[in-house]
Amino acid sequence: MSPDIETLIQKISRLPGLGPRSARRIVIHLIKNREQSMDPLLMCLDNVCKNVKICPICSSIDTFTDICSICADKNRSKDVICIVESVSDLWAIERTSCFTGQYHVLRGLLSSLDGQGPEVLMLEKLQKRCQENHIKEIIIALSATMEGQTTDHYIKNFFKNINVKTTSLAHGIPIGGELDYLDDGTLFTAFSARG
Amino acid sequence: MSPDIETLIQKISRLPGLGPRSARRIVIHLIKNREQSMDPLLMCLDNVCKNVKICPICSSIDTFTDICSICADKNRSKDVICIVESVSDLWAIERTSCFTGQYHVLRGLLSSLDGQGPEVLMLEKLQKRCQENHIKEIIIALSATMEGQTTDHYIKNFFKNINVKTTSLAHGIPIGGELDYLDDGTLFTAFSARG
Repeated sequence: MSPDIETLIQKISRLPGLGPRSARRIVIHLIKNREQSMDPLLMCLDNVCKNVKICPICSSIDTFTDICSICADKNRSKDVICIVESVSDLWAIERTSCFTGQYHVLRGLLSSLDGQGPEVLMLEKLQKRCQENHIKEIIIALSATMEGQTTDHYIKNFFKNINVKTTSLAHGIPIGGELDYLDDGTLFTAFSARG
Repeated sequence: MSPDIETLIQKISRLPGLGPRSARRIVIHLIKNREQSMDPLLMCLDNVCKNVKICPICSSIDTFTDICSICADKNRSKDVICIVESVSDLWAIERTSCFTGQYHVLRGLLSSLDGQGPEVLMLEKLQKRCQENHIKEIIIALSATMEGQTTDHYIKNFFKNINVKTTSLAHGIPIGGELDYLDDGTLFTAFSARG
């Protein structure tokens, strides 16, 4: 195998969810389907690589000139901000079309294991944004994990003395979930939060 | 999400073994680790895209100027040719370092379902190569599937009247395999071919 191909396989195998075997498969596919697959991918990657930026307002990732498409959209409500852990969570919420407000993308969750303190939450920036834009509600949409819930509590506590309502996503039985297969924690939460 | 990023996710999700979810994960990883991950990958891909060729002798894929590194290697024995289905099989054999001869990479296996006839085997080219280079042995290293075995028989039959020895890889219990978990076909073959 030529060193060029070997390096490419190595680089691809380091991407999340991939290993040497899947990387080899992808590289062979790319080489065999050069015109339909490799050239367009290369162009696309180059395009994104050149144009992608972090939005100065919500810290989301997008290709834009000044601010991201969500912050720039005049049809979206300006008085609700949804806090998400990452851009993938933002995309997931956007796919449901259930939310038409603004976002605040964290740089991570509070985690003593990973050495991530409150600075990753950028709450001062969010607070300033709340005051300047008369935000009425902050929706905290974090994972129901230990780190997610710790961060949720920390944010709620931070905004306690400020005139903004903070809410969190509901916990309970996932749609399509069978009671029999649920873990005890979820079932307990679903019972406590019944209504 | 910007159309640029969306197109990139779409292109990546069409690669073998990937779907929309893993593609999104990869794109976010690439964007977040632009300098360590995206830029080098882009350079590598561009490099391979520009330089990769199919070897005129063995039909393997490599980056080279004239013929591939295996065909050009003077330390490899010139009188044995190993027939493999694809470049990934060639790479797999090269990783074991058990073979130091030449290769002949097929364009596919005989398969009436996929409409692949004997032309994908390029046997005339191989026969010419055998006669010109005084090849002593052809090793047929194909998968133990229906298509692989059909192709194996076809190649053996083709070279029956030509003064070249044809051999196939041995079938039997894989190393580390437990008898109890083997399928009947493998166990039967292992018994018949005992020695």
